[in-house]
Amino acid sequence: MQATEAYTIEKVEEGTIVTPVGFTAGGLHSGLRRVKKDFGLLMSDQPASVAAVYTQSHFQAPPLKVTQESIAASSKLQAVAINSAIANACTGEQGLANAYEMRELIADRFSIPKSYVAVTSTGVIGEQLPMDKITYGAQKVQPNKNGAKDFQQAILTTDTKEKKSCYQLNIDGKTVTIAGAAKGSGMIHPNMATMLGFITTDATVESEYLQTALSQSIEKSFNQITVDGETSTNDMVLALANGGITHEPLTPQHPDWPAFQQTLQIVCEDLAKQIARDGEGATKLIEVNVTGAASNQEARIIAKNVVGSNLVKTAVYGMDANWGRIVGAVGYSEAKVNADMCSISIEDQLVFSQGTPCPFSEEQAKEDMSKEKVTITIGLHEGDGVGTAWGCDLTYDYVKINASYRT
Amino acid sequence: MQATEAYTIEKVEEGTIVTPVGFTAGGLHSGLRRVKKDFGLLMSDQPASVAAVYTQSHFQAPPLKVTQESIAASSKLQAVAINSAIANACTGEQGLANAYEMRELIADRFSIPKSYVAVTSTGVIGEQLPMDKITYGAQKVQPNKNGAKDFQQAILTTDTKEKKSCYQLNIDGKTVTIAGAAKGSGMIHPNMATMLGFITTDATVESEYLQTALSQSIEKSFNQITVDGETSTNDMVLALANGGITHEPLTPQHPDWPAFQQTLQIVCEDLAKQIARDGEGATKLIEVNVTGAASNQEARIIAKNVVGSNLVKTAVYGMDANWGRIVGAVGYSEAKVNADMCSISIEDQLVFSQGTPCPFSEEQAKEDMSKEKVTITIGLHEGDGVGTAWGCDLTYDYVKINASYRT
Repeated sequence: MQATEAYTIEKVEEGTIVTPVGFTAGGLHSGLRRVKKDFGLLMSDQPASVAAVYTQSHFQAPPLKVTQESIAASSKLQAVAINSAIANACTGEQGLANAYEMRELIADRFSIPKSYVAVTSTGVIGEQLPMDKITYGAQKVQPNKNGAKDFQQAILTTDTKEKKSCYQLNIDGKTVTIAGAAKGSGMIHPNMATMLGFITTDATVESEYLQTALSQSIEKSFNQITVDGETSTNDMVLALANGGITHEPLTPQHPDWPAFQQTLQIVCEDLAKQIARDGEGATKLIEVNVTGAASNQEARIIAKNVVGSNLVKTAVYGMDANWGRIVGAVGYSEAKVNADMCSISIEDQLVFSQGTPCPFSEEQAKEDMSKEKVTITIGLHEGDGVGTAWGCDLTYDYVKINASYRT
Repeated sequence: MQATEAYTIEKVEEGTIVTPVGFTAGGLHSGLRRVKKDFGLLMSDQPASVAAVYTQSHFQAPPLKVTQESIAASSKLQAVAINSAIANACTGEQGLANAYEMRELIADRFSIPKSYVAVTSTGVIGEQLPMDKITYGAQKVQPNKNGAKDFQQAILTTDTKEKKSCYQLNIDGKTVTIAGAAKGSGMIHPNMATMLGFITTDATVESEYLQTALSQSIEKSFNQITVDGETSTNDMVLALANGGITHEPLTPQHPDWPAFQQTLQIVCEDLAKQIARDGEGATKLIEVNVTGAASNQEARIIAKNVVGSNLVKTAVYGMDANWGRIVGAVGYSEAKVNADMCSISIEDQLVFSQGTPCPFSEEQAKEDMSKEKVTITIGLHEGDGVGTAWGCDLTYDYVKINASYRT
């Protein structure tokens, strides 16, 4: 149980994207991948309010265009189809036609308007979707109340673990659930990089306000993780709110709005950390906290710089308390930094203070850095700005995975 | 011989920083490193005009502060002392005192004003210079006409190769030489990252105009290389022009100014490429050319993004013609890009055209990418902007070197 400010927000350990009432999910092997599941479907019994954040790449893939078109047309979604293995990106007119067809297959099968269907794809880019397999997937997938695990598996690419999160809160005295599933691994960076997130909630909220809450949550979660600084063509976070629980519709004026916002933030952060931890070849999660920055935004920029530094990432992999690398990454940010005021801690040990290193136990540092999660804290003494970012270490396996991805 | 526009610029294969008349250099082992040379000195017979570009890190190291003070005081330099092994960065008041002392040792020994002496340090940060060893180096180093190789060696850290360049041109009908030595390896990125460059010339030019020429040259050379996106606390490029050859002083109005500018640019680019090629663990030099960007600046930004992408770097290491990674890196730049107009070639093969992949020989690509230098060309069809950047592949050895740098 997590008490945040005045709200009671509870984690549902076994919860999934189908824990909110009115949602079902499924996943199967359609033949795009050799053995693993590769086609998933998330559905809501009722048309759901929707919010979305998309990749900022100039090369937005056809599925993103089609999904944006659906959302623009109706501001509602009832089905989200996804395939892994092939990203349907850089595929030209044919790729766009295939994305439309994928959407139509789902709309036809469930007799819902096309504009209630979102389509997403993840995997290698530049290859056309084999539409026979997509057709098979669209016709055979069976969304149900036990299908979350199949869905979680079907959306993975180089991920080693499924990613899910589920929390509950009270709105107007009723229990509302917010849950999510995600894929990431490699190419994860601010602004939605090869990363897909699906959020479901049975809260009652219009798309407009859901978007407000999602955008705000993403800024301090998905946008604060980095695996290798890359951004992909296909990434997005979709949130669906189907109103399965009846309460006074949420707006920023609703007394429980802060709790809703806070819970959505927690779910997003939970998923984001799982993605960062599962970066390609990663052995550790790195959390960087910056305090005393001139603003929250500057704190977030510095935190991201540090957690994204190849030199910091390799040092953490080597369990080397190399504060010099951290200083380097802080130093080259564009944010306001007074070198003589800067302090750095690795876990609980202060290693750098007022611009110079301090004595610390190398042995203790090695032990601290052998853990699965390593926290670096940077104090700037410039102002009140705070920010956090998450990433992972850079290992031999990262090179191995990426030197031979296509072969 | 390299004919550039109307000028004749000749490479001097065996040339070094002491090829320009009036310069001497030396290097020795002072005991900072176990065996390798670690203290170098570059001298000019006469006070030389000087230009400098410094790291943009917030944590400028004490030697940089002292060097800046020297240059500000006299706009002339006669000696440049350097030590490797210890960077004298993040060393507080003591570090600053040590940098002053290092400067004074050289000034006293050669009976020149302190303000004619620059000091530079490279290596691990946070450790104080052992002044007994610095004193030994300052007193024993013997700059002479055969000492360039010793100097080149004394400035290296994790570099595997010495880096030098030398070109000649005609000014007012007289032969003028521009030469350079550099160190890099790891942590190389735009804006002067753990990179030191020393340029010597016997041209006659005031500091003000030398600075103009150097700043312009660096923008398209040292600032366009990246090994791992890091910036260090100590880096700088220093150029000394001692007027050893008498000619009408160079200004932008001098008819041979463009040839001078061009030659300086060539020397800087030559050194920059040697640094990029010698990135930690690198097996290849990667050159990225961008054409048809909205502006030269945007072209340079995109080129740097692509050559700095971990995914592109690992793909080149794996000799994988993975144009998708290149698309990814182009896509996430902030520059203006129309995805549907973008084309990409790897060496001479077009692999991506008008936003979609084209058929190409994987076999040929593998052969092309097995070379020591791999060229990637990106056409944007937005405007006339062109730009180039250089980097290296990301290998197992990069991780190995950096996971255990201090141990």
